[in-house]
Amino acid sequence: MVDNTQSLSARPATPILTSAHKIAVAGLGLIGGSLARRLVERGRYVVAWDIDESLYEAAHSVGIHTVDTIENLALGKPDVLVLATPLKAMSHVLSRLGAVLPETTTLIDVGSVKEPLRKSVVDAGLARQYIGGHPMTGNELSGFECSDASLFRDALWALCVDDHTDLSRFLTVADVVTQGLGNRFICIDDETHDRSVALISHVPHVVATALAALLSASSDRQIAGALAAGSWRDMTRVSLTDPARTQAMVEENAQHVSQLLNDISLVLSQQAQLLLAADQSEVHVHEACQRLTAFFASAQPYRNYRAAQAHLELPADNASLGLLDVSDGNWQAELLESAGKGQQIVRFLTTHQAQFLEVSGW
Amino acid sequence: MVDNTQSLSARPATPILTSAHKIAVAGLGLIGGSLARRLVERGRYVVAWDIDESLYEAAHSVGIHTVDTIENLALGKPDVLVLATPLKAMSHVLSRLGAVLPETTTLIDVGSVKEPLRKSVVDAGLARQYIGGHPMTGNELSGFECSDASLFRDALWALCVDDHTDLSRFLTVADVVTQGLGNRFICIDDETHDRSVALISHVPHVVATALAALLSASSDRQIAGALAAGSWRDMTRVSLTDPARTQAMVEENAQHVSQLLNDISLVLSQQAQLLLAADQSEVHVHEACQRLTAFFASAQPYRNYRAAQAHLELPADNASLGLLDVSDGNWQAELLESAGKGQQIVRFLTTHQAQFLEVSGW
Repeated sequence: MVDNTQSLSARPATPILTSAHKIAVAGLGLIGGSLARRLVERGRYVVAWDIDESLYEAAHSVGIHTVDTIENLALGKPDVLVLATPLKAMSHVLSRLGAVLPETTTLIDVGSVKEPLRKSVVDAGLARQYIGGHPMTGNELSGFECSDASLFRDALWALCVDDHTDLSRFLTVADVVTQGLGNRFICIDDETHDRSVALISHVPHVVATALAALLSASSDRQIAGALAAGSWRDMTRVSLTDPARTQAMVEENAQHVSQLLNDISLVLSQQAQLLLAADQSEVHVHEACQRLTAFFASAQPYRNYRAAQAHLELPADNASLGLLDVSDGNWQAELLESAGKGQQIVRFLTTHQAQFLEVSGW
Repeated sequence: MVDNTQSLSARPATPILTSAHKIAVAGLGLIGGSLARRLVERGRYVVAWDIDESLYEAAHSVGIHTVDTIENLALGKPDVLVLATPLKAMSHVLSRLGAVLPETTTLIDVGSVKEPLRKSVVDAGLARQYIGGHPMTGNELSGFECSDASLFRDALWALCVDDHTDLSRFLTVADVVTQGLGNRFICIDDETHDRSVALISHVPHVVATALAALLSASSDRQIAGALAAGSWRDMTRVSLTDPARTQAMVEENAQHVSQLLNDISLVLSQQAQLLLAADQSEVHVHEACQRLTAFFASAQPYRNYRAAQAHLELPADNASLGLLDVSDGNWQAELLESAGKGQQIVRFLTTHQAQFLEVSGW
C-alpha cells in the first residue's frame, strides 16, 4: 500500500477541472472515427473534419459534428485538436494548422511514429502546443465504416513529451485520455516510444508480411493454405493491413525497424543452421541441439510475463491503485521512470499527483 | 453443379458400413484428450492409455475407458488405434506396439511431422496397417486438463498415405475422421505434408519464439511490453507453447524448416537494407521505396485469399458439395490432385466415391 498522506501535504494539490470539453478530430478513419465515437458516447462535444465528406452523414448519425475544412476545425477553438489523418498527410495538415490554430488549443496526434512527427510540428510552429499521442489499439481494417467505439475500451496510450512540454497542456490531454476516453497512459519520450513500437508493432507487421508473401509464392499454397490453422491465422493477421499504411509506418521509423529486422534475421538464420547440424549425425549434433534448446529457452521470460499478466486482475476499486507525485521541474523524467517500472497512469487527482495501476510481471 | 449420375454408374459403388466402433487412444494430452472426448460425445466407444494414470479418474468422468499398459490397449482389439503421445515418445511406443497390435487394427497418429514417423512405423513392422494423420488444431496449452472436445469442431485433417496404403484401411480412418469426429480431410503424401506444415506451422513457431526472445532481451521490455497490443499478442501466442514440444517438432522436420527459415531471414535482412536506403537522401532512395512497395505487394495474393475465405459460406445442405470418384489403382494420386485444387473431403459415400467441399480462393 502507498501512504498518500505525506505526499498530499508535500506537494501543491490543485484540483483539476475537466478542461477539454470541446474536442476536434482531424481525420475520421479507423482510429479517428473510433476515438470520436467513444468521446461522444462518453459525453464530450466532438467536431470533426475529414477529406472525404461522403462519410459525414454517418458521422452525424452518431453525434459527431463536422466542418468543411481543416482551417474551420481550428477556428472553432477546440480545447484539444486530435490529428488522426494518415501518417503521410500529417506534415501537410500541420503546415495548414500552423497559421490558424488558436494558442488555447492543445494539439495531439495518434500517429504510430513520434520523432519525425515532432519535427513537422516544430516546422509548423506548433511545438509549444503539442503532446505526442499513440493509442495502442487498432486492427487490420481501415475507414470510418469500420470504426468502433469499443476499439478504445481499456486502451493504453503512449503520451510523448520533451523537456519543453507544458505541464498544464499535458494535464489537458491526460484528461481527454483518462476521463474522456476512460483509457490509461504511460508518459515517455519520442525515442523510447519509436524504439519500443518498432519492436512490438512495426517489426511484427514486416514479419507477418514476409510470412504471407512466403505462402503466396509457394507452389504448396493451395494445400498449405488449407492446412493453416489458428497459429498461422494469428501470426499473419496484421499482414492484411493496408500495405501502404504499413509501409508508411515502417519507413517513418526506418532506423529502429531496420536494426531489429537485422537482429531477427540473424537469429532465424542461426536456427536454420543449427537445425541442419542437429539433423546430421555429426560430432556437433549434441551442441546444436543444446543451442536450439537455448534459443527456445530465451523466450522464457516472455512466457513468464504473459503468465503473470493472465493472472493480473484489474482492481475493482481505487484503493489498490498507487499514487505518484510529480514536480514542476522534473515531471517528464518522473513519469518516464514510473513507466519503466510498469506503472500505467489511471488519472491525475491533482495537478501534481496521479493514480497508477502497476502491471509489471517481468 | 456436379452431375453424379454418370459417376455413380461408372464406378463400383459398395456402400460403406461404419467400421470403427472401438477406438483406442494412446496418450491423453491436449490433442489425444480432446479427440477422445469428442469421439465419446459423438457416440463412439473410446479406450485410452496414458503414461500418467493420475488423469484416469478425470477421463472416466467423461466416458473414456482406460487400460494400464499400451500392450493392453492393443490386445483389446480396437478397430483403430490413434497414437497421440508426444512426438519424442512415438518411436518407443511403436516398437512396443509392433509385437502386439492385431492385424485387424488400423494404426493412425496425430503427429505434426510425417516422414520420420513413417520410418518408425516401418521399423516396427506396422507399415501395412498405418495411415498418417495430422489434425490441424491445437493451441499453446498442454495436458488432459486443457483438452476440450470443441478443439475438434470443424477441424481439417491431413491424412498421409503412400503407394502401398490399403484403401479399405484408409476408408476406416476416413470414417473416424468424418463420421466419428465430424471433421474434413485432405489426403496427401508425407513429403507434401511436411513441406506444407513447415511453412504454415513450424516456421511460424520459430519466428514467434524469436520475436518473444527479442522482447525478453530488450532493455525496453517493460515499456514495450506495456505498449504491446493485439497484433503483438497474436503474433507471439504460439511462442507460449511448451518449448520442448516445439523444439521436437522443428527438429523432426529440420530440412524443410531450415530452408524456409533461411528464406525468411533473407527477406527480412533485405527489407532492413531497403529501409535504411529509403531513409537516406541518396540517389537510390526512390528505387528502395519501390522495392519496399513490391515487398508489401508480394503478400497481396494472401490478402485476396483471406478475403475470399471470409466470404466463403459452408453449404447448409449436401446438394452443393462436389463428388469425386476414386479408382482402386490410383486413389492416392486422385485424392492428392483433389487436395491441390482446394477440395476437402467431407465423407465417402461409397468405397469409391467421396463428397468434397471446394474451399479454394487463390
